[in-house]
Amino acid sequence: MASAADAAPSFLYLPRLDGSPDTFVLGEEDARYVARVVRAKPGERLTASDGAGCVAELVIETVRPDVFVRVAHRARAAEPAPRVLLCGAPEGERGDWMVEKCAELGVTRFVPVHSERVRWPEGTRVERWSRLAVAALRQSQAARLMGVESPVSLREAVGSLAAGVRWLADAAGASPLEAGSPADVAIAGAVGPSSGFSVEELKYLADNGFLPVGLASSRLRTETAAVALAAAWAALGLHARPGA
Amino acid sequence: MASAADAAPSFLYLPRLDGSPDTFVLGEEDARYVARVVRAKPGERLTASDGAGCVAELVIETVRPDVFVRVAHRARAAEPAPRVLLCGAPEGERGDWMVEKCAELGVTRFVPVHSERVRWPEGTRVERWSRLAVAALRQSQAARLMGVESPVSLREAVGSLAAGVRWLADAAGASPLEAGSPADVAIAGAVGPSSGFSVEELKYLADNGFLPVGLASSRLRTETAAVALAAAWAALGLHARPGA
Repeated sequence: MASAADAAPSFLYLPRLDGSPDTFVLGEEDARYVARVVRAKPGERLTASDGAGCVAELVIETVRPDVFVRVAHRARAAEPAPRVLLCGAPEGERGDWMVEKCAELGVTRFVPVHSERVRWPEGTRVERWSRLAVAALRQSQAARLMGVESPVSLREAVGSLAAGVRWLADAAGASPLEAGSPADVAIAGAVGPSSGFSVEELKYLADNGFLPVGLASSRLRTETAAVALAAAWAALGLHARPGA
Repeated sequence: MASAADAAPSFLYLPRLDGSPDTFVLGEEDARYVARVVRAKPGERLTASDGAGCVAELVIETVRPDVFVRVAHRARAAEPAPRVLLCGAPEGERGDWMVEKCAELGVTRFVPVHSERVRWPEGTRVERWSRLAVAALRQSQAARLMGVESPVSLREAVGSLAAGVRWLADAAGASPLEAGSPADVAIAGAVGPSSGFSVEELKYLADNGFLPVGLASSRLRTETAAVALAAAWAALGLHARPGA
């Protein structure tokens, strides 16, 4: 979207950045990336975040034999309002890009939910998705890493939510514009699996404050509804841009 | 999203539906689908559209040796306002799902644009994408088929647009809410390629009425911006739901 958005980003994910000393050596993988992909030289600058709101500008001190960096500036991004997606299982191998796109669009927690009709398969790829979330953080140069969780029951997922606005993706629901702006309140969205939530699950969601919200004029696949929900939150929440 | 949204849809794409006789025989591929996948029986009903606004309810008369159907009801969906996406080339093999999701979300024309920095590769898969658009039409049970075009220059693409609202996906742009609702006017959106539009292209777009619109608080990949734009149009345009 911005120029060079897809070039190798000189942006690192350093989970221990917040409490690091002012000069430190990069781990093997980051060092290889900086030296061989970005081809950075001593004196050049990089940006990094810890995925939990700490963002730093780093100056490269040495590249060989180790990559030493010095923290030139450290800042803390404002805590964003939670945007939590409870998501049923889509058909086939559609999870990867759904997770990647939700992370790019600023979802804060991705929670796969088992539902009555469809369970997420055994071996749901939480580790792989966490790596995709890290790649999205670096791509977007974001201060916060999307949390990717293991599949849980719908009740467990709903029980984990803070108070706030709750949407159920539903082709027959109200327009997102009428459903209230998620700019600075916690928001959660539930997306049914490929074959939809059961009647009991829909009642449970309604009883727990989930408002049906329509995202398009026709039926959407599970993964499309998830990304459309994330895109609607991103577009509607823009006036509360964290760090912008 | 709705229940059974991902089950084999008993919805056919029949390009010659509008001028068909009241009883006709299905072509080989549709007949096989109806007989073997949907396992429909004489007397059962199907829905079909021609992708150009004609929607019909069909009653199955015979299944063997040929699938004969009778048109029980034929209707014409309202002409939707055009939603045209001019899209630069993303990185790698990200075109397929971008096209599928844009079709599901109600884009009417998908126009790949060559830009100064990045051209779409030779052999851009327009035929494959047209098949994905047909699959999305059947999945969404939509009256209109998204047009998938061959790559053209930015000037050619802009020259093909009707008057209306024009957005440029730009991380620093205005909120879609401030940029005016696309509910019932023609709208076009331009999304830069992986390395962005050039300065000259940005000036050309500005001179031709493209307003920078921000879709998220951070940078988005080309294909994410395209789908987020389509999702914003779908969400904002809901109060003008065609046929709902």
